[in-house]
Amino acid sequence: MSTTISNTIETLLKNKRYSSLRDVLSTMNEADIAALFAEIKEDSLPLLFRLLPKDLAADTFALMDTDGQELLIRGFSDNEIKEVFDELYVDDAADIVEEMPANVVKRILKNTDPEMRQMINEILKYPEDSAGSLMTTDYISLRPKMTVSDAIKRIRRTINDAETIYTCYITDDNRKLLGYLSVKNLLLAGPEEKICDIMDTTIICVHTLADKEDVAKDMNKYDFVTMPVVDDEGRLVGIVTFDDAIDVMQDEATEDIERMAAISPTEESYFKTSDFNHARNRILWLLILMLSAAITGGILTKYEDACSAIPLLVSFIPMLMSTGGNCGSQSSTMIIRGMSVDEIKLKDFFKVVFTELRISLIISVTLAVVNGIRIWIMEGDLKIAVVVSVSIIFIVIISQFIGCTLPMLAKRCRLDPAVMAAPLITTIVDAASILVYFSIATRFFNI
Amino acid sequence: MSTTISNTIETLLKNKRYSSLRDVLSTMNEADIAALFAEIKEDSLPLLFRLLPKDLAADTFALMDTDGQELLIRGFSDNEIKEVFDELYVDDAADIVEEMPANVVKRILKNTDPEMRQMINEILKYPEDSAGSLMTTDYISLRPKMTVSDAIKRIRRTINDAETIYTCYITDDNRKLLGYLSVKNLLLAGPEEKICDIMDTTIICVHTLADKEDVAKDMNKYDFVTMPVVDDEGRLVGIVTFDDAIDVMQDEATEDIERMAAISPTEESYFKTSDFNHARNRILWLLILMLSAAITGGILTKYEDACSAIPLLVSFIPMLMSTGGNCGSQSSTMIIRGMSVDEIKLKDFFKVVFTELRISLIISVTLAVVNGIRIWIMEGDLKIAVVVSVSIIFIVIISQFIGCTLPMLAKRCRLDPAVMAAPLITTIVDAASILVYFSIATRFFNI
Repeated sequence: MSTTISNTIETLLKNKRYSSLRDVLSTMNEADIAALFAEIKEDSLPLLFRLLPKDLAADTFALMDTDGQELLIRGFSDNEIKEVFDELYVDDAADIVEEMPANVVKRILKNTDPEMRQMINEILKYPEDSAGSLMTTDYISLRPKMTVSDAIKRIRRTINDAETIYTCYITDDNRKLLGYLSVKNLLLAGPEEKICDIMDTTIICVHTLADKEDVAKDMNKYDFVTMPVVDDEGRLVGIVTFDDAIDVMQDEATEDIERMAAISPTEESYFKTSDFNHARNRILWLLILMLSAAITGGILTKYEDACSAIPLLVSFIPMLMSTGGNCGSQSSTMIIRGMSVDEIKLKDFFKVVFTELRISLIISVTLAVVNGIRIWIMEGDLKIAVVVSVSIIFIVIISQFIGCTLPMLAKRCRLDPAVMAAPLITTIVDAASILVYFSIATRFFNI
Repeated sequence: MSTTISNTIETLLKNKRYSSLRDVLSTMNEADIAALFAEIKEDSLPLLFRLLPKDLAADTFALMDTDGQELLIRGFSDNEIKEVFDELYVDDAADIVEEMPANVVKRILKNTDPEMRQMINEILKYPEDSAGSLMTTDYISLRPKMTVSDAIKRIRRTINDAETIYTCYITDDNRKLLGYLSVKNLLLAGPEEKICDIMDTTIICVHTLADKEDVAKDMNKYDFVTMPVVDDEGRLVGIVTFDDAIDVMQDEATEDIERMAAISPTEESYFKTSDFNHARNRILWLLILMLSAAITGGILTKYEDACSAIPLLVSFIPMLMSTGGNCGSQSSTMIIRGMSVDEIKLKDFFKVVFTELRISLIISVTLAVVNGIRIWIMEGDLKIAVVVSVSIIFIVIISQFIGCTLPMLAKRCRLDPAVMAAPLITTIVDAASILVYFSIATRFFNI
């Protein structure tokens, strides 16, 4: 569907059918228009943007990528900047300001109204990963003594176009958070009821400096559409909305996945990252792992004599290393993901180790039997088959042990468990596998 | 904080201070109570649950784990079942019914009111991963001809305790979806305005059979708190709420991560899965990868003569295999994650291949230089250093090419790209690395 509309728009644009273009754009959702804007030619962007109705323009602007936003702002008159920014949610405006170069920021702040400017600055002063930087200061606050009909009047009077209401927050004269009230309960209450009698006082909130990942987790745990953010004195300073929490959770999952593949995570998307930055994000770990693998190579040279005595031994090295590596990375992946969704906690250490031990017994024996039979049949050498199978049993057990303990130890040392993922585990397990294999083989064959 | 409260509750329970217990529990949030219930001894669960106020009891029940729910239901009187289930959201009730054994389901359906029973059955008839199975049939529907004050009256009359309103949906007499209206716009409108004049008719909805992952993605894209679900005739049959969408996104990320570590994904949590099932989820891929690695071993035996001629060659095998494997898995991880968050599309195939090619040039030369110098210094053998470094250049380029193309080819063949993740890529790349290394070495040394 999206493709058809973008073709239509390109054709209308080429034929200069601006009034039809405006009509077509007005039927579209802002997220779809933003996606369309990312695909069309840059020079038609300002024209198309100016065809949008005012409120749709601001909503679309908030969803565009940084490059497109900058392009538009550079072409905007001061008045256009004011029009767009006054319609934005404060948190979106702050996000945009954060991404723009200094001269653009100056023009934006000069042309927004003082209240908006102050709110943007308020949000920008918080550290990058904090609840404060994620929140919006657009929220509805009510006083406990108000009646329901006062409250509705206040909402009608103070709410602006940009805001959406899910939950109203009740504060005292010092902005201290006292309770909350869902819009549903507001609608259900009689007009003369007092807010303090119908509000919910079980307050769950986060501090401005709370880690944004924890905020998102809490919102998911409590199924909150908005989470109130308070300062040291318990004063309400903003709310985090569910859409930002979802983005944080997605970004965290991406970060975990990248770290688990030995890539330094970035906030940029794949195509926005330069080749040089892509290379830099990957090369550090590659170097570390490459040099560590050289240690495994060193161990291997110690067993040169064994390799020359029974050359067939060498051919099982890739299989043993790969099996050990895969078992270790399976275990570490289960534990890392379990910890990041809070299913596995540090206090479960021994429970996890014993679980993995039991699993490794089942897996190791199965793999040993299958592989032993295969080698016996294909190579016709029962002794080699036994040595390789016994090695597999030890390698699988050791690998799973390393795979499950290292991420938990990393967490214990306040490191991100995801650094103990597949690549590092594999390198450690590789060395262990070679040692185990040749210790068993040299003893068995007396070489 | 959570820990302190759980200690308090245990002590109160031991001292039989039931009225204080009820007071303490009433101050808590349902998600925290459910977390507490998962930790306390099973035999005190029914008692504690019965101390909860009625609406908090239902909310808590919905958030408990399946084992706890089953335990409670088995101890419930028919009347208690009715009380709890009548308070639940329909989608939660359907989820619970889906997880229970047949005899418990029978008791539940017998004791819920006919309307609820019908709605549960409605949801259960949809396939497991569809929008229909995820939706709730608790939603507010209005008619276009209503005035705002009629609408508010209707909402007050029809809304039940369980429901929350974010967006009202407007349908005609045949339940066909005509538009929507946010609660905010309902509050802002004058009492005599007609719904059809203030509703938004830009309808974005999903089909009952849409994949739940796509539904979650759309809700994230459009920042929707609820997504309407329609049938073949465009009739509104339910809505998906943001909390379920977040859970779907988290589960999908977990599934991706597990698949990328060669584990068959399950819906169960780590500790709820039996050892046997854990082993089964991991063993299939381990067997496949183990047998594939045997091929690499086979290739290695072809170069037995070269190994005997220059034994030092063997010691670089782990390093070359590990570097190739890591480069391949870095590329595949970037591409798989990029595709799963829709940043990379199939039509970007050549763009991706060329990007990875440029990145691989930077990486390969860097690694080759570092490694060449290290070998030259440590082994004092310039020829070996050159052979290994040239091999690294080819291995890195080939690995990244394999790593970026296979996931996209998998997607092209309608497979999950995540199956082409690290473990499989590594196995393929291992064989390629050995081939490249020994081809270069045998040619260079003429052996």
